[in-house]
Amino acid sequence: MSTMTTPVETMPDVQSSVDTRRIPIQKVGVKDVTYPMLLQTNTEVLPTVAEWELTVALPAEEKGTHMSRFLELLEQYRAQPMSMSRFCQMTAAMLGLLNATEGDVTATFPYFMNKVAPVSGVASLLDYQVSWTANAMATVDDEADVQFELTVLVPVTSLCPCSKAISQYGAHNQRSHVTVSVVGHPEHLQLDSLIQTIEAQASCELWGLLKRTDEKYVTERAYENPKFVEDLVRDVAVAISQMKGVEGYRIEAENFESIHNHSAYAVVEG
Amino acid sequence: MSTMTTPVETMPDVQSSVDTRRIPIQKVGVKDVTYPMLLQTNTEVLPTVAEWELTVALPAEEKGTHMSRFLELLEQYRAQPMSMSRFCQMTAAMLGLLNATEGDVTATFPYFMNKVAPVSGVASLLDYQVSWTANAMATVDDEADVQFELTVLVPVTSLCPCSKAISQYGAHNQRSHVTVSVVGHPEHLQLDSLIQTIEAQASCELWGLLKRTDEKYVTERAYENPKFVEDLVRDVAVAISQMKGVEGYRIEAENFESIHNHSAYAVVEG
Amino acid sequence: MSTMTTPVETMPDVQSSVDTRRIPIQKVGVKDVTYPMLLQTNTEVLPTVAEWELTVALPAEEKGTHMSRFLELLEQYRAQPMSMSRFCQMTAAMLGLLNATEGDVTATFPYFMNKVAPVSGVASLLDYQVSWTANAMATVDDEADVQFELTVLVPVTSLCPCSKAISQYGAHNQRSHVTVSVVGHPEHLQLDSLIQTIEAQASCELWGLLKRTDEKYVTERAYENPKFVEDLVRDVAVAISQMKGVEGYRIEAENFESIHNHSAYAVVEG
Amino acid sequence: MSTMTTPVETMPDVQSSVDTRRIPIQKVGVKDVTYPMLLQTNTEVLPTVAEWELTVALPAEEKGTHMSRFLELLEQYRAQPMSMSRFCQMTAAMLGLLNATEGDVTATFPYFMNKVAPVSGVASLLDYQVSWTANAMATVDDEADVQFELTVLVPVTSLCPCSKAISQYGAHNQRSHVTVSVVGHPEHLQLDSLIQTIEAQASCELWGLLKRTDEKYVTERAYENPKFVEDLVRDVAVAISQMKGVEGYRIEAENFESIHNHSAYAVVEG
Repeated sequence: MSTMTTPVETMPDVQSSVDTRRIPIQKVGVKDVTYPMLLQTNTEVLPTVAEWELTVALPAEEKGTHMSRFLELLEQYRAQPMSMSRFCQMTAAMLGLLNATEGDVTATFPYFMNKVAPVSGVASLLDYQVSWTANAMATVDDEADVQFELTVLVPVTSLCPCSKAISQYGAHNQRSHVTVSVVGHPEHLQLDSLIQTIEAQASCELWGLLKRTDEKYVTERAYENPKFVEDLVRDVAVAISQMKGVEGYRIEAENFESIHNHSAYAVVEG
Repeated sequence: MSTMTTPVETMPDVQSSVDTRRIPIQKVGVKDVTYPMLLQTNTEVLPTVAEWELTVALPAEEKGTHMSRFLELLEQYRAQPMSMSRFCQMTAAMLGLLNATEGDVTATFPYFMNKVAPVSGVASLLDYQVSWTANAMATVDDEADVQFELTVLVPVTSLCPCSKAISQYGAHNQRSHVTVSVVGHPEHLQLDSLIQTIEAQASCELWGLLKRTDEKYVTERAYENPKFVEDLVRDVAVAISQMKGVEGYRIEAENFESIHNHSAYAVVEG
Repeated sequence: MSTMTTPVETMPDVQSSVDTRRIPIQKVGVKDVTYPMLLQTNTEVLPTVAEWELTVALPAEEKGTHMSRFLELLEQYRAQPMSMSRFCQMTAAMLGLLNATEGDVTATFPYFMNKVAPVSGVASLLDYQVSWTANAMATVDDEADVQFELTVLVPVTSLCPCSKAISQYGAHNQRSHVTVSVVGHPEHLQLDSLIQTIEAQASCELWGLLKRTDEKYVTERAYENPKFVEDLVRDVAVAISQMKGVEGYRIEAENFESIHNHSAYAVVEG
Repeated sequence: MSTMTTPVETMPDVQSSVDTRRIPIQKVGVKDVTYPMLLQTNTEVLPTVAEWELTVALPAEEKGTHMSRFLELLEQYRAQPMSMSRFCQMTAAMLGLLNATEGDVTATFPYFMNKVAPVSGVASLLDYQVSWTANAMATVDDEADVQFELTVLVPVTSLCPCSKAISQYGAHNQRSHVTVSVVGHPEHLQLDSLIQTIEAQASCELWGLLKRTDEKYVTERAYENPKFVEDLVRDVAVAISQMKGVEGYRIEAENFESIHNHSAYAVVEG
């Protein structure tokens, strides 16, 4: 077979040649990689499946990066429980593996919380989309500075204050996505309490399984607690800015309006 | 340049060789083709952009179809106003162009209706996703029998009867998608009246632009008119089955529940 | 709190009232439910995350189904290893829980195979999208007949025979999706061998991690092995129809053409 | 009817009340609005359909914005041919309509170029996704400063230099998306020449319709012109930075690798 006749050391290594265009590349790597992850929470190891993006910066004089090494990194870490701190260490290790001075890793995955319905007490899981992003910069002593960002998309109910105020009965409400990114040290950020803090600011939180007594509760709770999309992002901002370990935040809310075929949308950064 | 040295008549024509696997192919062609369309309505020509799928059946003994001819067909028809009848003629013409005895064309495109808000009377457009599908079968006299199906996705408000009945105030409501396919002669089906018939069965229809007086109206209208996902598909079925020209239907409703992170869903065929 | 003042037995039960529209509903239930699944393979238990759709048929005289019970079913089964047979049992159990005579469950989830690169021998995972669908019909003796369908989307390389034949060098190639559904008894269908059978028919199979010696192999292997989209579905059809336990199949291939902005597409059913 | 009994001037205007949370909102408005657009090019008016996002900044002391006015703005401008300059004027006009000091409008829409196949000369359209974004800031004299950004996603062929260099024959190639954003004065940016400049840097450009003589050309052209994802972004950067009117750029390339189930990806900003 032809592949047997070419020893690897005699193959041309195009990526390693010198580039003369004088254009450094901020990010080069792999994207849309689906790979499993053993999520390490405070209390347990939860297997999940993540979408990964791994990139490094490429200096102007280098022609190409070594794409296969990103997959080697994923393969090397996949059997190990992955905490947010471990994720930052993996990003720092990528710099050495790729001979790079800067690099980014993002993993996006479904996460579940076990929730108890508010009246009946029946238990079920609710799913959230979580992203971790780490940026590593090499330092002079061959170490790396790593910045970490935790993002979570929390689905909630929003109920319109204007609709309630002007109508004799009822008020339009809908599912909304509140997406919060927080910057901080990975050992000081708490995913579960971040989710609970966000849910507490909504007109009502969601559950997977609700019995009729619960449905009465969530209906009335949302009606008693109307919020504009502006209220959602502001109330979440007030609550998040008081959380321990949060050094910066970005809050985005999108209401899939039940009375329109478009969304109401707001963003606050602080 | 090398391409100049090979006259087309001496090029191998791999697709035209004989196949010995004895497996007829039900559908082969092109998919995810984005091409403009001049939509001919009853009253005007509306330019829109469609996603196209064009396929033919391939007999067991033929190795391949001629992919470029599907694009030639689109190119040939794109400057002509396209009614549902013209679309059926185009599908029949495809059989001759591709030397096929059966073929299907689907075009999916955004469609707008100019709607007047219920109290203020302000006008705005609402968008719907429409699909046309034609299936053509060659007949012995070199003509073609064409079956036509019209599909429209209508976004509406649904308000939960159970939530209303058990709660002291309020009721959860949400955006829903009602997707209706009807089979019939292209000259007997009316898109606008189909959309209006579907909207009339919802808890409330949607508008792009609503002033406060309108928002009061739609809030109260939905509250006075609660519907389960089961009610939505049944009420649409009753209304559609009485429409002139409808020979068969499929009705699907998906409620993006405001109290859950999943949908309620129902299908009726008749 | 208001919710405490209404005992559940006095709440109106709107879903249980009688319907007079005389329209049976083929499917009603929940859709787009994200819930974890403990996938039981022949050799191990692999945790994954699935998208679920659970529906039952509703007779003409019943107003509504009981949506919360679908989530109770998921909650009840989520801690148990789920084989294809267990999935069929769960679908049968749904009929009793929902007082229904027919019902369907579909779960769609990412699945990984550990693959060894063809020359270097390095190992990595490749992801596939798998769906299980079961349809249960109640029988007179309070049992259920269950039909099962296994679907897998296998990404592969396709290389165009025409492009190779007419060009002095090179040939356009691209990623393709081969999606195969097979009907059969859940104890006779083998997911891994189904995937391998499909991959063997492509111009070349894919790997997550390839070193340079492997890249030479896959490049030459695809060039030596050109396939039209028609060849892909036919060769898979020939191979699948010889597999033990396959009672029916549907094969779909979509080539994301590297020379166009649309796909070539084919379907064979047998 | 209840809605008739409440004159609008007596309705509570919740959005106009004073907010005490001291949190300014960077962006609030509407998103995922589908509305038609009459695209004014240098030579003609092309009707298309756009997805819109319109937002304004909201000062800390204002409770809410007036959502319906964004739709009024769209309605007001939809019958007018929309050039990039007109789009900037519309964004400036939004500030007055919403009583805002800063605001952003983005419209994303399909755009077609009429392309002639390289050997046969047959004509067909190719589709591109285009986005316009304008940011308007009020100035002291009641005017507005407007920044404009033009983005286009250009699908192309990329062929791997490493695969070509190490293989006896063939080379893996695939469809790639090159997404370029340029900042500049709307009267100095040229969409068609931007697209052509990007296409000229790819291994080969795409066409909707290719005959066999063309397929030979594009196959050989791509083989003669291999490019890594790094080469793509660098060569586009060199070419774009020499274009008249471009004050800044961001270039992103994603190769949907034909030998992997993930993408190679690169970003350059300048």
